[in-house]
Parts: sequence; C-alpha cells; structure tokens
Amino acid sequence: MKLFMNEGSPFARKARIFAREKGLSDRIQEVVTAVSPVDANSALARENPLIKIPVLVTDDGARLYDSGVICEYLDTLHERARAFPSSGPARFETLGQQALCDGALDAAILCRYELALRPVGLRWNEWIEGQRLKIGGALSVLETEAQSWPDEFEMAQIGAVCVLGYLDFRFPEWEWRRTHPQLAGWYRAASIRPSVVATAPA
Amino acid sequence: MKLFMNEGSPFARKARIFAREKGLSDRIQEVVTAVSPVDANSALARENPLIKIPVLVTDDGARLYDSGVICEYLDTLHERARAFPSSGPARFETLGQQALCDGALDAAILCRYELALRPVGLRWNEWIEGQRLKIGGALSVLETEAQSWPDEFEMAQIGAVCVLGYLDFRFPEWEWRRTHPQLAGWYRAASIRPSVVATAPA
Repeated sequence: MKLFMNEGSPFARKARIFAREKGLSDRIQEVVTAVSPVDANSALARENPLIKIPVLVTDDGARLYDSGVICEYLDTLHERARAFPSSGPARFETLGQQALCDGALDAAILCRYELALRPVGLRWNEWIEGQRLKIGGALSVLETEAQSWPDEFEMAQIGAVCVLGYLDFRFPEWEWRRTHPQLAGWYRAASIRPSVVATAPA
Repeated sequence: MKLFMNEGSPFARKARIFAREKGLSDRIQEVVTAVSPVDANSALARENPLIKIPVLVTDDGARLYDSGVICEYLDTLHERARAFPSSGPARFETLGQQALCDGALDAAILCRYELALRPVGLRWNEWIEGQRLKIGGALSVLETEAQSWPDEFEMAQIGAVCVLGYLDFRFPEWEWRRTHPQLAGWYRAASIRPSVVATAPA
C-alpha cells in the first residue's frame, strides 16, 4: 500500500501512528507529498479530488480518504486488538472520540493557515479566537477523560497525541500544558511510544 | 432524540435527510440552533465542545457528532435497507463517498465564511480559488458517478444533494449545472423526493 503524507500533517500522522500500532507499517510505503490550500498539488489531485492528505492507495488500487476511513480500513487488516468496536455504545464512543480530535485539528489547521499562510494584512483575529474556542473545548474534554484512560492506545489516545503534538509543533506559545495538567502528564508518558517518536514532526 | 440543527447547515441537512429516508423523523425533535465561528453559541458549546451542528442527543443522553457519526448511529435504529454496509469493499466505498461530499462541503462552507462573514478588506482570493478547486474536483467525480447511480438513495446520493443544494443556496452564481449536465439531470429528479423537499433551505 502507499500512503500519501507529510511529516507536518497531523491527520496523516493519525494514519501513520495507527499503522505502527497495529503492526502494518511494513506493508505501507509512505510517500512524502507537499500540500497547500492555495497552491494545488496536481499530482495529489489525481489521487484525491479534495487535494488533501492522507490518501491510502490499497493493494487493490482503491484510493481511501480521509484519515478516519483509512484507519477503519487498516483496522480490518491486522490481528491485534480492534481499534473500532464493531457495534454498540463502544463503537459510537470511539467514533465520537475521533470526531472530537478531528474537530480540534481542523480548527488548529485553520489557525495555522490564518497565521502563517494568509498575507499579514488579511488576517482576522476574531476568526482565530473562534477556532481557539473549539480547540479549548476539545482540550477540556480530553483533560477530564485522560484521567481515566487505561494503558491502551487506541483512537482516543492516537487522536490526542496528534492534537497535542500539532499544538506543540505549530503553537508552542499557546502553552496548552499550563491549563491541562492531567493531559500534560498523560502526554509525557505517551510521547515515548515508538509509534509516536517515529512520527513526530521535525 | 434531539437534533441540534438549522436549515442553512448542509451537514445538519445530511442527518435530517437520513432520518426521513429511514423512517426515523418521528423520533427526532429538531432544535433550531444558531451557529457562527466568530460568535460562539454558549448553549451549543455545552452539547458539543466543537460548537458545531449537527449534534444528536440520543435517548440514552449521549451527544453524538459529527454528521457521519450521527448517520451511522441512526442506521442502527431502523429496519429499512442499511445505508452503511457492515464490511468489505462496499463499506469503504460508502465511507469514501461520504468523505468526498463532506470535503466538498467543508470547502464550500469556508468559501461562505470568507465571502459573507469575514470583513471585506480581509478577504483573500487565492483562498477562495483553492477551496473552489476542491469543490470542482468533487463535482467532477460526482458527475461521472451519477451516470451509474441506481434509484437507491443512500450516503452517496444524500451527500450529493447536500452539496448541490448548498451550492444553489449560497453560490447560485457559480452555475454548477453548466459544467455538470449528468449531475444536473440526476439532481432534478432527486429534488422532488419528500426528504429533500422537507429539508431544503428557505
């Protein structure tokens, strides 16, 4: 399989951590791919009409996106513990945890585009503040939930690593640890997992 | 159950059409909810930390989001044809069709915010053009796929109605029909379905 990705993309990281946690990384060739919302990568557009990463090309030649679809597909290929319960409340709890982290990442990426890509004179502070409220809301939920997280490392934990790692990478000045001590403690321990180390943005 | 929604939200519409198609609308109270990315609805923030709609409150009191999670949950509650195949290539085809339409809607909503919410002097044309490329890419795929769509009305078709209905609602000047004749013909027929009529933005 091929995974179009780059090291800075937190959604690509979700798929990359997932593959490593489930013992699938030997079967996946990672293809470093440049993306920008204002400078379309025409090669990537042939793989995904939304011109986004990650995209997984399966051994059957199917193109899968977004990151949630990729993780659920990869979850059918391994013999370890399933990350996505097949039914019932546990399934929807997992999907909800994923949606929470995806939403925080969407907001953080919009902040990144606003503050690093958009010309300085066109930036809008209310937009940033609105997106930061969403990130803060998600972090508050994670701060509570992390207190009861077991040692397992499934979608909730993978999602949290992607969110917190991205905040450290792009917005260290927001100092999320100051107001989220439980999460900071959990993240310190999670950060030494091989899958997390191997996928950390440079 | 309660569904936080408003008539202008295409993601809320996805859940609302789904509920009607599967005979579940009698069990769902729709709660009209104002949202703005720069003027947070604090009541909504208590239901969904991402401060977005749709949110479904189940009979057990769980809060479900986003629209894909809601549709998959509703799919467990009815006795009609399942919209989400339980496994195999058909499942990932369905999830991919949903991801395609969700991505087009994300891009269209960003265009809407840029052109209607952001102060005039802060708008960035390259951003709009970049998002329009994503929408165009998705429409090209739908134009091809619609030629072989059967009469069924499942995730691909619900997603397409939400995308095309939103373009008509917010961007009629883009005239998507001019370059997508197959899709225009399909949409003309789809537009008279009761679930589509009942959820059309005013």
